[in-house]
Parts: sequence; C-alpha cells; structure tokens
Amino acid sequence: MRTSKYPSSSNGFSQRAQAVEPPPIAWLMEQKLKYPALISLAAGFTDPDTLPDKETMQIMHQMAKSKAVMRTTLQYGTGSGRKRLRELTGQRIAELDHTASDKPAYNSERILITHGSQQFLYLVTEALCDAGDMVMVEAPTYFVYLSILKYFGVRACSVPLKTDGIDLVAFEKKLEQLKQSGDLWRLKIIYLVTYHQNPTSQSMPLGKKQALMRLLARYERDAGHPIYVLEDAAYRELGFAQEASAPSMLSLPGALKRVIYSGTYSKPFATGIRVGFGISPAPLARALEHIKGNQDFGTAELLQAILERALESRLYAKHLKLIQARYAQKAGRMVDAMKKYFPSTVQWAAPQGGLYVWTKVPEPVDTGPRGELFETSLKQQVLYVPGCYAYAPDVMGPERNTAMRLSFGNASLHLIEEGIRRLGKSLRATLG
Amino acid sequence: MRTSKYPSSSNGFSQRAQAVEPPPIAWLMEQKLKYPALISLAAGFTDPDTLPDKETMQIMHQMAKSKAVMRTTLQYGTGSGRKRLRELTGQRIAELDHTASDKPAYNSERILITHGSQQFLYLVTEALCDAGDMVMVEAPTYFVYLSILKYFGVRACSVPLKTDGIDLVAFEKKLEQLKQSGDLWRLKIIYLVTYHQNPTSQSMPLGKKQALMRLLARYERDAGHPIYVLEDAAYRELGFAQEASAPSMLSLPGALKRVIYSGTYSKPFATGIRVGFGISPAPLARALEHIKGNQDFGTAELLQAILERALESRLYAKHLKLIQARYAQKAGRMVDAMKKYFPSTVQWAAPQGGLYVWTKVPEPVDTGPRGELFETSLKQQVLYVPGCYAYAPDVMGPERNTAMRLSFGNASLHLIEEGIRRLGKSLRATLG
Repeated sequence: MRTSKYPSSSNGFSQRAQAVEPPPIAWLMEQKLKYPALISLAAGFTDPDTLPDKETMQIMHQMAKSKAVMRTTLQYGTGSGRKRLRELTGQRIAELDHTASDKPAYNSERILITHGSQQFLYLVTEALCDAGDMVMVEAPTYFVYLSILKYFGVRACSVPLKTDGIDLVAFEKKLEQLKQSGDLWRLKIIYLVTYHQNPTSQSMPLGKKQALMRLLARYERDAGHPIYVLEDAAYRELGFAQEASAPSMLSLPGALKRVIYSGTYSKPFATGIRVGFGISPAPLARALEHIKGNQDFGTAELLQAILERALESRLYAKHLKLIQARYAQKAGRMVDAMKKYFPSTVQWAAPQGGLYVWTKVPEPVDTGPRGELFETSLKQQVLYVPGCYAYAPDVMGPERNTAMRLSFGNASLHLIEEGIRRLGKSLRATLG
Repeated sequence: MRTSKYPSSSNGFSQRAQAVEPPPIAWLMEQKLKYPALISLAAGFTDPDTLPDKETMQIMHQMAKSKAVMRTTLQYGTGSGRKRLRELTGQRIAELDHTASDKPAYNSERILITHGSQQFLYLVTEALCDAGDMVMVEAPTYFVYLSILKYFGVRACSVPLKTDGIDLVAFEKKLEQLKQSGDLWRLKIIYLVTYHQNPTSQSMPLGKKQALMRLLARYERDAGHPIYVLEDAAYRELGFAQEASAPSMLSLPGALKRVIYSGTYSKPFATGIRVGFGISPAPLARALEHIKGNQDFGTAELLQAILERALESRLYAKHLKLIQARYAQKAGRMVDAMKKYFPSTVQWAAPQGGLYVWTKVPEPVDTGPRGELFETSLKQQVLYVPGCYAYAPDVMGPERNTAMRLSFGNASLHLIEEGIRRLGKSLRATLG
C-alpha cells in the first residue's frame, strides 16, 4: 500500500492552491482598516461622484417597458456574450482605431464578453501558459497581472520601459537570448499596457507597436507558435485630452494571428457593473469561450444588457466625456499639490490620462512597505502603492524601491490635496 | 539550440486549453439553431413567465433613492463578496437546516459570493485537484460538472445512485479499493447533488448523509487529508411541496473540516442576475477567495446588491413561493402528458422538485445523440438531453443509453404538452 504523499496536517490542496497568496492590494486594504482616517492614494478605485446612477436607472426604465426585453435580461445567455454587445464592441474599437468595423480583426465572433477585463487576462493566461512558460512584461507593470503569473507558475521576464513604451533594443536582445538558449518556445505572451499605463501613465506610440510586431513575426518561427501580444487597453478611454489615441495593434498586419486585445467597460462606466471584453485570434477565442463556459457559463445578462443600452443610446459616450473631464481635474489637483508640498528632488511626469501619477523619490529613500517612508506615511494617515510591487522578481533595479504609485481616481479633490500635503510632510521627514 | 516542442502549425496553447472541448450543451443548442421550430425539453433554463422583472425594478428604485447606496452598488467591492449578503446567506442556510445561524458552520467568513454556483464548483475543483486526482460522482450526475473534471484532467469515479441517494455499500467498497491500492490520497472530493438532483430529481435523506460522513471520517486518515464532500444544493429551494428539506451536511459533525456547500440565487431568483455562493472550511475559503481575486476581483456589486435587498425585503421569499407553485404545475403537466402520450413501457418517477423528469426507455432503444430515437425526435422537432451525457467515462451500464433528461423549466405549459406528444410519437416509431 502506497503511503499518502501528504503530511498528516495537509489540506489536500492542489499545487496551485498551496502556493496561492493574498494579493498585495489585500494587504494595502488591511492598512485602510487599521487606520480608519487613512487617505488612500493607493487603490485603483474610480471616482464615486461621477458614477452613472441616473444613467443606470434610465436604462433600467427603458428595459422595464418591455416584458420581452426583461426576459432576456433576467435569463441565462451564451458563453461568449450577447451578440449585439459584441457587435457594438467591435464597432467601437474599430472607431477608436480610425478604421472600418467590417475588417476581420473587429469581427464579433472573435470577441468574448467577461466579468471585467481581469477575467479576460486570467483566461488568456490559463489558455496559453503551462507552469514554466514565460510572459514578457514591462518594468514596471500592472501588479495584479504579476499575481496571476505567479499563481500559474509562469515566469515573468521584464523589459525596461522608456518614456514611450518598452525599450525595443532590450526587447530584441531578450528575444535573441531566448532563441540562442533554446527557450523561445516557452515565451507565450508579450503583456503590454499600451494606453495611460498602470502604473506610469505612459502610452505606447504606433511606431513602436509596428516595430514590435515586425520583431515578433521574425522570432516566432523559432518559437514554433505565435508569440501573442496581449494589449491591455483598460485605460484607453480615460485620456484627458479629447484627441484620438493611437490605433491598437489590432490595426496592424499579423493582428489576426497574434494580437489579443483586452478592454473594459468597468472603469469608463461603472466598476460595479463589471463588464470587460477581449478580442482574440479565432482558435484562441473558441478555447477561451469553452474555458469560460466551464468557469461561469457566461457573463451575467443584466450587466451586459445595461452596457449594450448605454452604448446604443450614447449615454456611454456622454458619460465618458464627463469622467474624462473629471479625472483631468483630479490629476491637475494632484500635480498642483505635489508641486506645492513635495521636496523639489521628487520627480514625476504629469499624466495625460489614466488614474495614476508615477512618482520617484531620490535615493537612498526606500518606498517599500517595510521602509521608513511607508511607515511615516501610515502614521501621517496616507497610503500609496510602493513601486516595488510593480516589478517582476527578475529585476532588481534601485528604481524598484524609490517609486510610488499615487492614484487620484477615488479620493475627493479635497482629500487628494490633503493626502499629498501629508505625504509631503512624510517625505520631508524621511529625506531629512 | 533546442528545437521547439511545438509543431509548426501549433497555437502554443497550454495543455489544458489544447484539450478543451465545447460542452455537450453547446451541441444541443446548435440543434436548436438548425431546427428553429424545435421544442427544447433539453436546456436547464428557467421559466420565463415568472422572472422577477417587477421585483428587480422595485429594488432598483429603492436603491436609487440614496446616492450613498448607489455609490457602493456601482463601485468595486471585495473578493469574498458583500458582508451583508454573506451574513444573510449564512442565516438563510442555517434556517433551511433548522438550526441556529450563530453556529460556526454558517459564519460569513466561510462564505464566498460567486458569479453563479458554476464558478464556485470550478474554483473548488481548481483549489483541490491536480491533474490525475480523483473525484467521486453520482451515476448519473450533473453533466456540466463532468466537463469541469475533464478539463482539469481529474478522474471521475462513479458510484451508482439508488432511489434515495448514492449506494453506500458500493461507496464504501470504492473507498476500500482505493485504500488497498494506495490511491486514496488522490481522492479529493465526493461530489453530490443532494436536493432534487440533476438529472434524477432525487433527494438524499439525512440518514444517508450521516452515514457518508462517518465513512469519510474513517477513511481520510489513510488519505492524509480531508476527503471533502462538495454538496451541490442548486435545486434545494425548488421543491414543490412547502415541506422542509433535509438538513445539509453543514449541520453534521465534521462539517467544519470537510463539508463544502454550493448554493445559488440564480435559479430561485433570476439566472440573468448570476449570484451563487459557497460555504467552505476556513483554509479553503481563504484559498478560494485569493483564486477568485486573480480570476475576477469579486462578484459584480450591482448583482450582489440586488440579491441582498431581495433577501432583506422578503421579495425573494415571496418570489420563491410563486416559482415553486409554477414548477409544480409545469411538472404536473409534463407527467400528465407522459401518461397520455408515452408507451406504457417507458418509466419515470414523478419529481418533487427541481426542473427535470428522468425517463427510462425500454431496451434496446438507444437514447444517445447518434441513435434512432434522437434522430426521429429531431425530425419531430423535439429535443431532450441524452442520458449518456450524465455518466462519467468510467461506467458503461446499459442504462447509459436508455435514459433521457426532460426539462419542464423553460418551455410553456402548451409546449411541454406538445413536446411530450411529439416525443411520444417518436418513441412509438422507434419502439415499433
């Protein structure tokens, strides 16, 4: 008789579950509970004053007029999502890309509606990566995606970020190294947050997207499979200026084969109505639909129906203008306060969109969760996201511990100003 | 340089995704598209006439009265779900179990709110099972859960179902066999649909639950970890009689260690407002919360807020009475029509709840998707779920191909009658 492989105190968890950890954000939220008067400039929560309460009620009233409409709204749907919402989504992204929506890249059959774009990122990683595979990420990158990679046992491979997207020279060097070492087949995804990036608020220009696509086309012969680009456009619609954003990689040659576009209606409309979406190469779109079928049968019809009506009635477009102006105002207030209260040695770039100001503190100050600055700031009742969270374990630059992500999304104008004032006090105390 | 392990035509999918298949239900739905006049007695969709459209609007109006309420409804929440909804859920299940809600088993800290109970079943399997592990299932069982097991590479191990839950003698024999062969450590979950089971509509009596728990306590020493019981109570509240259901296994000794209770508000309220939940041993509850955090950050606040209000205002309880009566009526209509139109050799047990009549056709008629009966029925424009889908690959009884699952959930009273008439015609043609 074989003895159990488990020690007597085991829970019998799967290998993945044995390794799962609470995300850093959970720890940050605990601090908020410990210090109730804390001003949080940490969470990526959205602005509470501009949530579309009236718009949502208006849509619910429209729907309630028809028994037939309410029936589809309150019943099961399909795994891939409502057809009309997928069509509207394809049209919308084509429009943002300044191109015709009848191009194959924007076809509704390639679109999957999800419970937020987080679910889409999870599904894509699940569908493409076995433990030991690799995903290239920007340094710094969206820290929750790093949690997903860790959970799946996927190796994150960092490429430095310049002020206009990833460093292409370093990127090509990494590809070449992987080719030479014979590991290129393990590289599945290039994960890029291309609009108002989390955490740096940078956007990636079109020229760089084109160069990147050409490099991938060249190297994927040696990989033996497409090296997918996962273009996370979560903040695309949160630009402050009314000017158009650069086209996505869906508009480029090779997109049908290797571009995966991840988008969301949560941040631009309401995070409590969690609807995200993704556009994928056809075989991948089918696999994602089936995995989602196992996971939850499909996104809740009520949520999808609300977004569908919002898009069709232009309520969505109208609301978007409102929140773009609102976030521009809040970013302005934060930056003004930083100028006023921060020591002159602290550096940042004023954001053009998104929810964050990525801020660098002079060395040797450590912004990490066990450093003096974080502790002092907690005592001052102000919370930020330590920059180190945004770096994968493979990089160890000094920058890791000298950056902070400051969010102007959730706090009121008054609390943004007050939070920055407190943080300034804490910075001066730490810098001496 | 190492050559890629992938053939040149590869998609680079993960091992799981390479094996993922469309679920049988997708194929059944395609038939519906091919034959538009088809009467579907296949899908587990709920009754469209009793969907709570007015109730949902009433709740939305209540919420819209307060800006503060709408703010929490349209914003991000926490990974485990709204605290109040978790408390109400614990209270409700304790009440159904005829016990005090302050018992640890019903504590809100052990409760996770999910996008439907399907997501909970997926998460539990992900958290407990590695590829090659085993889950015991009833034969027949809920066929979508078999898809989940297949997707995870988990071996389903069937235990025959008697008219009052699983065959305990066969169950103990399986445990003993696994112990003797040294494979007991791979057995992670006993998956049981204990109320108005899908597909048989049987419920498991309390005595059998007690005996099962005692057996598990005895055998799990050799497993080296808890052998979890996953009690799927999806149909618990859909009983026709007003009489109380048997207590769940949460009420039994050892529950804190090994009972996982899966429940849903989707079927009893609205499937378009997809809210499910699960109650788990504390360490598992934490792991599930973290995995869900990676997967989607938490269930959409809007959906949770609606259910919370429905439960608190007794709209939920009131609606439940309505649909219980409705399904009783529809089941009655189906059974009456079966008596009228089916050959006398066809057998079934009249359901006391749930959505299905499990029906057995005399041998050698094959109810399978490639059999004559299914084909003839499609030509008659009526669809059923072939019984074989409800059996795991490890069993090959003759019963496999002589059963059908007939659902009275979605079709109208008129179409139930007409569907059964057509099926009767098809049965007579096939039986000769």
